[in-house]
Amino acid sequence: MHIEVVPNVNEARSDNFINKTVIVIDVLRATSSIVTALECGSDGIIPVETVNEAKSFETKNDLLSGERYCKKISGFDLGNSPLEFLNHEIQGKRIIMTTSNGTRAIQKSHKAAHVIAGTILNASNCAKKAFHLKRDIVMLCAGTQDQFSLEDGLCAGLIINELSQLQEEEIYLNDFSKAMYLGFLQAKNELQQTILQCSNGKKLCKMGFTEDVIFCTKQNEYSVVPILRDNIMVAM
Amino acid sequence: MHIEVVPNVNEARSDNFINKTVIVIDVLRATSSIVTALECGSDGIIPVETVNEAKSFETKNDLLSGERYCKKISGFDLGNSPLEFLNHEIQGKRIIMTTSNGTRAIQKSHKAAHVIAGTILNASNCAKKAFHLKRDIVMLCAGTQDQFSLEDGLCAGLIINELSQLQEEEIYLNDFSKAMYLGFLQAKNELQQTILQCSNGKKLCKMGFTEDVIFCTKQNEYSVVPILRDNIMVAM
Repeated sequence: MHIEVVPNVNEARSDNFINKTVIVIDVLRATSSIVTALECGSDGIIPVETVNEAKSFETKNDLLSGERYCKKISGFDLGNSPLEFLNHEIQGKRIIMTTSNGTRAIQKSHKAAHVIAGTILNASNCAKKAFHLKRDIVMLCAGTQDQFSLEDGLCAGLIINELSQLQEEEIYLNDFSKAMYLGFLQAKNELQQTILQCSNGKKLCKMGFTEDVIFCTKQNEYSVVPILRDNIMVAM
Repeated sequence: MHIEVVPNVNEARSDNFINKTVIVIDVLRATSSIVTALECGSDGIIPVETVNEAKSFETKNDLLSGERYCKKISGFDLGNSPLEFLNHEIQGKRIIMTTSNGTRAIQKSHKAAHVIAGTILNASNCAKKAFHLKRDIVMLCAGTQDQFSLEDGLCAGLIINELSQLQEEEIYLNDFSKAMYLGFLQAKNELQQTILQCSNGKKLCKMGFTEDVIFCTKQNEYSVVPILRDNIMVAM
């Protein structure tokens, strides 16, 4: 099984996803929010690109969620904070979500055989489910404004670490995956501190989202693995 | 002092280099060859893009050097192997060099205040000289065909490690530099083995260049730091 990590959405070549399983990673915070929403009983999350697209989708039973520049979009029910999802009544509801990087990464993966969402919260189960889909894996780090984000790279390294422990099949890592794996192994004992100190971690703390950052670094807190089916992320 | 690492030539934005020191890194093998050539007494290395450009430059006292697909260009005096440079009479000669990635990275850096060449061979002195140029630093990893190459990333991490030991000024790392630094710290005790196992390492070994790969992973073997002056890489 070949494993590849793509450093940011801008580097993604959708033809490279054909016949593969894509794990979209946006630790701070889109995929962490999606995982949390499904864990809390949401019926599914529809990722869309624009605010207008989100509004055009909405029916009585739906919630609108999303951010621009890390802040909740005006008039929306929810922002992009997993802790907000934890504290909101979302059981049985569909969520229409638009974020700056994460939902764009999901849409960019449309040619893949399977698209699933990876986070630190669900890393272990994400690795297991991806492995059992029996295809080569591409981890697409959402990054930030077409730049690499350390928290996504470390999460990719963590998922590689989980995959390597399955030991059912040999895995082949490309150079960038190896770099992310090495980085994770070095940082694993201070993962939370490292992420609090990276670019997005510092930015979110400054904006008052320190608890969100801390929450998003909890390893294997959840078991749900979101998968894209008919353009909706649902529990696998 | 801000430090940034660019993963490959394709990601390089030359406007981002203005007023900065760019360290071009192509461990396997262009910058390792350039460092070796200067250490062996070459007058300087002129990086050019094409084979024809190289030929048009040549005068009686010059040597032509370069590779395509890792092999010496037909009719050239030298390939891109540092061991070849060690065993060739190059004292007092100018070398016209064209390689697939390294010389392209040097040319892409033309807007920088200073362009120097970094390798594992000269990492310690490269860090010192770059530091004393007193500008923000961008390390441009040449990579391979617009893809990230692990050996270049690990070399960037090694140079960051050397810079961090100077302790004369606080250094600020962007997310990608942090990832490369973490990766180096994890791999530092088995750097040679890691590079023998990465994509270019394996490819070169398969082509008979194992000794080259081993040579290029010797830490701080040389003290020379090549710098670009009037389009020639000379000893700083």
